[in-house]
Amino acid sequence: MSEWKDDSKEQLLKRKEECRDRYEAIKARGLKLDMSRGKPSPDILDLSNGLLDTLDVYVTEDGTDARNYGVPAGLAECRRLFGELLGIPADQIIIGNNASLELMHNVYSRLYLFGTQGHAPWCKSGAVKFLCPSPGYDRHFAVSQAFGTEMITVPMTEDGPDMDAVEALAAADEAIKGIWCVPLYSNPQGVVYSEETAKRLAAMATKAEDFRIFWDNAYGVHHVFAEHQAPDILRLAREAGNEDRVYYFFSTSKITFPGGGVGIVAASPANVAEQQKHIAVQTIGSDKLNQLRLVRRFRNAENIRKHMRVIGEMLRPKFDVVLDTLERELAGTGLLSWIRPKGGYFVGIDTLEGCAKAAVALAKEGGATLTGAGATFPYGKDPKDTSIRIAPTYPALDELRQAMELLCLCVKIVSIDKLLAGK
Amino acid sequence: MSEWKDDSKEQLLKRKEECRDRYEAIKARGLKLDMSRGKPSPDILDLSNGLLDTLDVYVTEDGTDARNYGVPAGLAECRRLFGELLGIPADQIIIGNNASLELMHNVYSRLYLFGTQGHAPWCKSGAVKFLCPSPGYDRHFAVSQAFGTEMITVPMTEDGPDMDAVEALAAADEAIKGIWCVPLYSNPQGVVYSEETAKRLAAMATKAEDFRIFWDNAYGVHHVFAEHQAPDILRLAREAGNEDRVYYFFSTSKITFPGGGVGIVAASPANVAEQQKHIAVQTIGSDKLNQLRLVRRFRNAENIRKHMRVIGEMLRPKFDVVLDTLERELAGTGLLSWIRPKGGYFVGIDTLEGCAKAAVALAKEGGATLTGAGATFPYGKDPKDTSIRIAPTYPALDELRQAMELLCLCVKIVSIDKLLAGK
Repeated sequence: MSEWKDDSKEQLLKRKEECRDRYEAIKARGLKLDMSRGKPSPDILDLSNGLLDTLDVYVTEDGTDARNYGVPAGLAECRRLFGELLGIPADQIIIGNNASLELMHNVYSRLYLFGTQGHAPWCKSGAVKFLCPSPGYDRHFAVSQAFGTEMITVPMTEDGPDMDAVEALAAADEAIKGIWCVPLYSNPQGVVYSEETAKRLAAMATKAEDFRIFWDNAYGVHHVFAEHQAPDILRLAREAGNEDRVYYFFSTSKITFPGGGVGIVAASPANVAEQQKHIAVQTIGSDKLNQLRLVRRFRNAENIRKHMRVIGEMLRPKFDVVLDTLERELAGTGLLSWIRPKGGYFVGIDTLEGCAKAAVALAKEGGATLTGAGATFPYGKDPKDTSIRIAPTYPALDELRQAMELLCLCVKIVSIDKLLAGK
Repeated sequence: MSEWKDDSKEQLLKRKEECRDRYEAIKARGLKLDMSRGKPSPDILDLSNGLLDTLDVYVTEDGTDARNYGVPAGLAECRRLFGELLGIPADQIIIGNNASLELMHNVYSRLYLFGTQGHAPWCKSGAVKFLCPSPGYDRHFAVSQAFGTEMITVPMTEDGPDMDAVEALAAADEAIKGIWCVPLYSNPQGVVYSEETAKRLAAMATKAEDFRIFWDNAYGVHHVFAEHQAPDILRLAREAGNEDRVYYFFSTSKITFPGGGVGIVAASPANVAEQQKHIAVQTIGSDKLNQLRLVRRFRNAENIRKHMRVIGEMLRPKFDVVLDTLERELAGTGLLSWIRPKGGYFVGIDTLEGCAKAAVALAKEGGATLTGAGATFPYGKDPKDTSIRIAPTYPALDELRQAMELLCLCVKIVSIDKLLAGK
């Protein structure tokens, strides 16, 4: 198949007409498909309904009544469970309420309000800037934006953020205080950070002494194809003499229930001590019954891994539909590029320049809602307007097939318009 | 009985010897009694074990799957339940995770970071000061202290804070940005704010345009004796044209489980909209399964009130032990004064000047742990060293009897030492 940019005007018009016909046929079905957010589907949630069963023993291994106040760092057995799962010493782990986003927000907020390890609070600094590998997670960027942090876009590669750019920026500007990272199955491209990338992040010179890596290992055990692992950033940072540089986040939102699980923050011993000091002022203790439910349900890390293999098998056909449809409809056309995701929750695709917004709008009109184009970039503005995020986990397979076909047709129609404008 | 200050040295020495003998006899039992924190006792928690039963329907009234992401303001039926209970429109209520302290901390934090209703963030102001009616709740003061807020002690009366002092301070100093209030069964004295107090708080002139009342109605339905009600501060503030002045907090910690319930913040429509905007950045939604558990368990406000009557009946004998022991051992001695609490979770007592710390230390040595003396004042410093907080809810009745007897003996011994020093 030759690339469509080489087509004649007539060929393009003919292609457009064919696409339009197919588009209208799908639109006529009056579908309401949603590929906008990375939500688990009901059948995935059903796997965890055991969590809702009677919790008839609410006393922890050390005799604490989990119904009552206390234990702000989380139950020992729960810290140990996730320590085992993530390969982190249990005493470097703090268990919070559901939504790791809230834990990130809280840590970010404490850096602004109180500073860290003796450094001045960020709210007392002049400008504060953050590196934002993009496309990235819109909710990370929304946190930075809410705090008035200046966001600096850094390109993504198949090995993680472009480290030459990251190193040059971090070394040059004292106002650059940190970076957002999703190291395993990045949102939205499903990229796995290489060991080399993580090493450079851990060891690089930073002009700001209180430079911080927000390491959101959101998909740490969320394999779809082969089982990869995020580089061990806490170890790498320690070995590089920068152990306080990293805040590591994780949650059970996509393991059990987003609306009733736990969030986790891990860090160096000094950072954990500092966070615990802050947390003790903020709360008398998180929801310990949820912690106990998880411990009773899974007992050990291997059982969580087994559970995630079941979820992976449920997600794989959905990823296959997305990737197969892209391949069938658009491979070789020169209209679309994408990195084959290694796992996680999303697929990121790139249209021709200036086509993403229009394609998403056209898909919406046809019955399929996607994440807003641009959302995966700082300030919601994708400078080249090419990036689209596909979230295939929620819809049922048949819906997903139709939505993907529709999306591909929209990409073609919008791209043809662009090519025609240049003829 | 004549007051002990009028006793001769010899009489006092004799009394001291008697008290010492009784003290040593109790100490010899090797007790480990804890009256330090306002924790519900296991038998109170048992009342709510139904919450742990299977939650077999997790779909809300509008079809939302409560297990999944979303609904950051809380489920409609849960907002309605607590709206009915508290007499607040449901759309002025936001449901958060367990620990209303965290909600207070978050609102406080947002005032510092982002300001409110167009006013400058407090972290950009010079000094920020808060009025702290004392004795008060140590964890409120700990939040202010963590933020570097300058705390100004205001005396408590039997009708709430000394409003002449509050009004004079708030009108004079722009740096005074707010006040901590526990309007019903105040911590630790069990005082109920009068309607007049609340009216003056709602209507008073404040030099700071963004003066805020943190109205922690922590014991809003926690009756022990007669059933009182906190003044309707949201209505009073609205009628006074100051509806954005109030943040109203509540929680189920002492209704069901501290370690697995919900916290609640209510406010004016404009404040609720502002909080929702911030919350949407911070989380994709709180624990909705806990919200649903509460709705399914109680169904309506009247059932919560019935449940609280049962708890009240369990707590009343404990308050009786405390008050009867104080009466029997110390009435008429001139060594101790106290306000008879109208309900709630605590009893506050006042020793002779300079005796509280020593009495608490002596009690600890004898086997009974109390809240640290001074903790109920800003910076943990009770200027006259007179205030002691008794938290009678957790210990069993028999333990409480021994602990109270021990405490009374400690108060006597320490007081006698003080009187002797003046002879």
